[in-house]
Amino acid sequence: MGVPAVWRFLIGPPLRARQAAKQQITPIEGLPALSLDALTSVAYGPEAIIVVLAAAGIAALPLVLPISIAIVVLLAILVFSYRQVIEAYPGGGGTYAVCRANFPPGVGLLAAAALVVDYTLTVAVSIAAGVGSLTSAFPGLSSATVPICLVILAVVTGLNLRGLGDTARAFLLPTMVFIVGLLAVIAIGLIHPLAPHVPRQGRPLVPTEGLESVGVLLVLKAFSAGCSALTGVEAIANGVPLFKQPRVVRAKRTELLLGGILGVMLLGLAVLANRWHISPRFGETVLSQVIATAVGRNWAYYVMSLTITVVLMLAANTSFGGLPVLTSRLAGDNYLPHQFSLRDERQVFAIGIWTLAGLAAVLLVAVRGQTLRLIPLYAIGVFTAFTLAQSGLVKHWRQTRPARWHYRAVINGVGAATTGVATVTFLVTKFTVGAWVVVLAVPALIMLFVRTHAYYARCGRALGLDEIPARPHAKPTMVVVPVTGVDRLTQHAIAEALSISPRVVAVHVVVEDTGQNAERDSELDRRWARWNPGVPLKILHTEYASVVRPISAFIDEIHDQHDEQIVVLIPVALPRRLRYRFLHNHLEIALAAALKTRPDVIVASVPVPLRVS
Amino acid sequence: MGVPAVWRFLIGPPLRARQAAKQQITPIEGLPALSLDALTSVAYGPEAIIVVLAAAGIAALPLVLPISIAIVVLLAILVFSYRQVIEAYPGGGGTYAVCRANFPPGVGLLAAAALVVDYTLTVAVSIAAGVGSLTSAFPGLSSATVPICLVILAVVTGLNLRGLGDTARAFLLPTMVFIVGLLAVIAIGLIHPLAPHVPRQGRPLVPTEGLESVGVLLVLKAFSAGCSALTGVEAIANGVPLFKQPRVVRAKRTELLLGGILGVMLLGLAVLANRWHISPRFGETVLSQVIATAVGRNWAYYVMSLTITVVLMLAANTSFGGLPVLTSRLAGDNYLPHQFSLRDERQVFAIGIWTLAGLAAVLLVAVRGQTLRLIPLYAIGVFTAFTLAQSGLVKHWRQTRPARWHYRAVINGVGAATTGVATVTFLVTKFTVGAWVVVLAVPALIMLFVRTHAYYARCGRALGLDEIPARPHAKPTMVVVPVTGVDRLTQHAIAEALSISPRVVAVHVVVEDTGQNAERDSELDRRWARWNPGVPLKILHTEYASVVRPISAFIDEIHDQHDEQIVVLIPVALPRRLRYRFLHNHLEIALAAALKTRPDVIVASVPVPLRVS
Repeated sequence: MGVPAVWRFLIGPPLRARQAAKQQITPIEGLPALSLDALTSVAYGPEAIIVVLAAAGIAALPLVLPISIAIVVLLAILVFSYRQVIEAYPGGGGTYAVCRANFPPGVGLLAAAALVVDYTLTVAVSIAAGVGSLTSAFPGLSSATVPICLVILAVVTGLNLRGLGDTARAFLLPTMVFIVGLLAVIAIGLIHPLAPHVPRQGRPLVPTEGLESVGVLLVLKAFSAGCSALTGVEAIANGVPLFKQPRVVRAKRTELLLGGILGVMLLGLAVLANRWHISPRFGETVLSQVIATAVGRNWAYYVMSLTITVVLMLAANTSFGGLPVLTSRLAGDNYLPHQFSLRDERQVFAIGIWTLAGLAAVLLVAVRGQTLRLIPLYAIGVFTAFTLAQSGLVKHWRQTRPARWHYRAVINGVGAATTGVATVTFLVTKFTVGAWVVVLAVPALIMLFVRTHAYYARCGRALGLDEIPARPHAKPTMVVVPVTGVDRLTQHAIAEALSISPRVVAVHVVVEDTGQNAERDSELDRRWARWNPGVPLKILHTEYASVVRPISAFIDEIHDQHDEQIVVLIPVALPRRLRYRFLHNHLEIALAAALKTRPDVIVASVPVPLRVS
Repeated sequence: MGVPAVWRFLIGPPLRARQAAKQQITPIEGLPALSLDALTSVAYGPEAIIVVLAAAGIAALPLVLPISIAIVVLLAILVFSYRQVIEAYPGGGGTYAVCRANFPPGVGLLAAAALVVDYTLTVAVSIAAGVGSLTSAFPGLSSATVPICLVILAVVTGLNLRGLGDTARAFLLPTMVFIVGLLAVIAIGLIHPLAPHVPRQGRPLVPTEGLESVGVLLVLKAFSAGCSALTGVEAIANGVPLFKQPRVVRAKRTELLLGGILGVMLLGLAVLANRWHISPRFGETVLSQVIATAVGRNWAYYVMSLTITVVLMLAANTSFGGLPVLTSRLAGDNYLPHQFSLRDERQVFAIGIWTLAGLAAVLLVAVRGQTLRLIPLYAIGVFTAFTLAQSGLVKHWRQTRPARWHYRAVINGVGAATTGVATVTFLVTKFTVGAWVVVLAVPALIMLFVRTHAYYARCGRALGLDEIPARPHAKPTMVVVPVTGVDRLTQHAIAEALSISPRVVAVHVVVEDTGQNAERDSELDRRWARWNPGVPLKILHTEYASVVRPISAFIDEIHDQHDEQIVVLIPVALPRRLRYRFLHNHLEIALAAALKTRPDVIVASVPVPLRVS
């Protein structure tokens, strides 16, 4: 079984377009399909707040509660905003579509660049957090954090290349275990405020004396870190066409459901963290501490830890549903190479999937799989997109003026203003700790989009896409066949050459080096004469080792003498077994490579099957 | 400057065969050109003995002297043996040539396999020992041993790819500094027996109590380890044609010179090591200790250390002169893929060079650049080749019976017997500490040679190399041109197609997926009708994402209807700048790859230059 066969086995046979058609989903199925990114951010959002606060010492930790309340208020604003996006753009497409429709192209590209950054970070953050949950439960694994991250990334990439990225129903069970389990943990924690304390793993990271004073900047930093918990609330609006009819109603219901669950979880976790004085520890996540404190370090704890790892993998998976679709739209608009818009045999946008996997792998390796080192980069892209989408909607309402458009515009306006302020806050507070990467990446991506677009435009003019070209005319054709001997290979190639044109010349290159060759070559002359194929044999001499140079020179000579179309036919032996291929065709590979960019020459291989077992 | 330009800059422009002709050398130049491998083995041979003895405690160390004497006696036998090889085979070619001439093919292959192993190990051992000398002088570098080894390997490989591998004159200076310097060190050591003791670096590796008792096995082990100092004495016999006339005389004189210098060095080092109680130390080589003790750790020490590193690099380089020539001979005899016998544009056997570099890199990484871990693998290959070459000569003398043939046969017979016994000793004493690698590698290589040979033989029959084939006949030809639009690309391709045959059909694949495409396709139909190129346009529909499948099916259809030769011409846009290439031709790459192994179809790209800056 060769490499292609193994690949085919992993990826599966080609699919018809309609076999790959997406199943239509209900609001409950919408949670696993479109909301996992948002829901699972409880695995790192509260932790991000607590880590920032811990820098100011234990005294600052109770601030987690008011900051979480502020984040939940922002969540509510976003949920109502995005319910309106669903109504306004039931065709889906999300932020990029909204911006394309309401703003000049540059804003659409800004949104696209922000989304590319966002999707990549979502994959990296989700996988890192999932592995963080795993290593909290099994500390022995923590030395293998990066390899585990990359294996999970490979599995998610493979599933998506197979086209299994959006089998929402299969994701329903772990999603429900996660939601119900975490709500149960919170309920237990609230009912039994003096929950059984278990010995905590790892080393506490809270300095006894604060390194920073509790001030506005600290609160802003903690708030902006916690906003990473809001990433993903836009995903439902992007996927409206996936829902069963009535789509808009179902999608809006899912958005509300998501907002409610996420809000309850965030508030609940904040209350418990506050009550139990949870502080960041090296080697154990905040969420793991909360669960362990609530239910004890028993089977329930391990079930929840593994479930969290699984749903975070699935959250990473939702980005794989998003970025390739976005890049295919960008490619369709000539902003990215057209390869991004091609579906492969499994009907997936393979280049987009590979690109996302590659970028996420680089990020995971760069931060060594540490979630908290990714948090400062995160949320900027998302909140830029939030702001743009809602500003676009404000414009949309002002132009279309449906019933109650003032009311709608105010909701989206408040959303845009809040997320805009949050974006600026992120930029200011996180610039030096990593956000500069995003600040560089977004303009670089926009530049890439713009330059690609400009190139395709120049290209279209060069190809004359807008005009009808002149009628094509035939020219006389001369076929050149490089040969190495009188054998079946040569016979086959000369026959093919004669089928193309009666004007055929065989060439043979003699490298003037050893006497041995010269002898073999006069032997070739004799055999050619005996064979008498009706085609002249031209012997070309060279002092260089390359056979390409003399053949090129010979072609130049023909060109100078006649205005002819030149076709070079290279006989290529094709043994049945792949592993024997490299025992042949050494000259041909070099020749084809050297001649293939000559615009005046058509180079073709003549495959001659070789019946050698 | 693209990748090919950088490569061209590194490697240099193409060379004519006569530009690359080798300079002819004198005996003094023969030392750097052909004897460095042998001379530099003083850098690891004595150390290998001492390390083995040290396992039996300090008491065993004085055995270094008698063992070294035994090795020098063996050296004398080998030198006289190889002087006779030079006389018998003045055409060079070495062991493989001797075995091919005197033994059945199997023995020649055994010699070839042993030599491949030997050349690879010579490169690895020399580089590791050179870096050992460097890190002895500059202990701070020892943590970077493996990277330094690989950089040196890359430099040597690059020089050989450039064809500068055998510029013997450039090597003369370091070689002379090395020989004169080391002889001076030995003289100083012998004149001033109480040489200034310097503080020794590193940690002593001698156990106070012996781990092994002093017995026959220990002596045999030490002897066989020390025999690594004899590797390379055969190189002069391989390179006789390089010498100025009278070749045989000069080559024999060089062999004697080499034997004398190497013998003096080995004995001198053994005496000094014995007198100064030199013992193996972690982080400093034995040779470095001897030099430091003799001259002090001053400028002279550092000059010698760096010189040793340089000459060991050059010793590695001599293998690059040997293996590619050997593999090209094997390829010429159909025992290796024919690529090994092709010279590249710099007139070097590039595949052989790359193969040697790759194997040596694997070895260096596997042993982490530690010379002593390579020693057990070394010498077996060399001594197998020694034994075979001299046995071959005994047979040669018996068959040709020149004057004094009895005397000659006795010399070679004694040489063969001694080296044969040594080979068996190596196998027995070193099998478990690494020699098993060689014991596996040699039969594996022979298997590779035999199978390749058998394949080419079957191939020759399949190609009918011994018969005159039937006359080739033309068949009617149909040209298929896949198009994506009506533009200059298509116009160019259709014109080329019409030059090949009047029977041309353009095909366009419609992936039945989105409504957008269907619209664009009826637009294509209309534009085609307006253009009216005299060629029909056939629209092919598919439910799969691949365009290859429908085109393949269409070709099958044509085949079933007519017995025609089919040519597929794929228009390919060729922008002037390389970096724009990947923005085009996505469909074409897949199509060409899928169709190129269909024996009934000729696939060619039609390059259309695109004037886009």
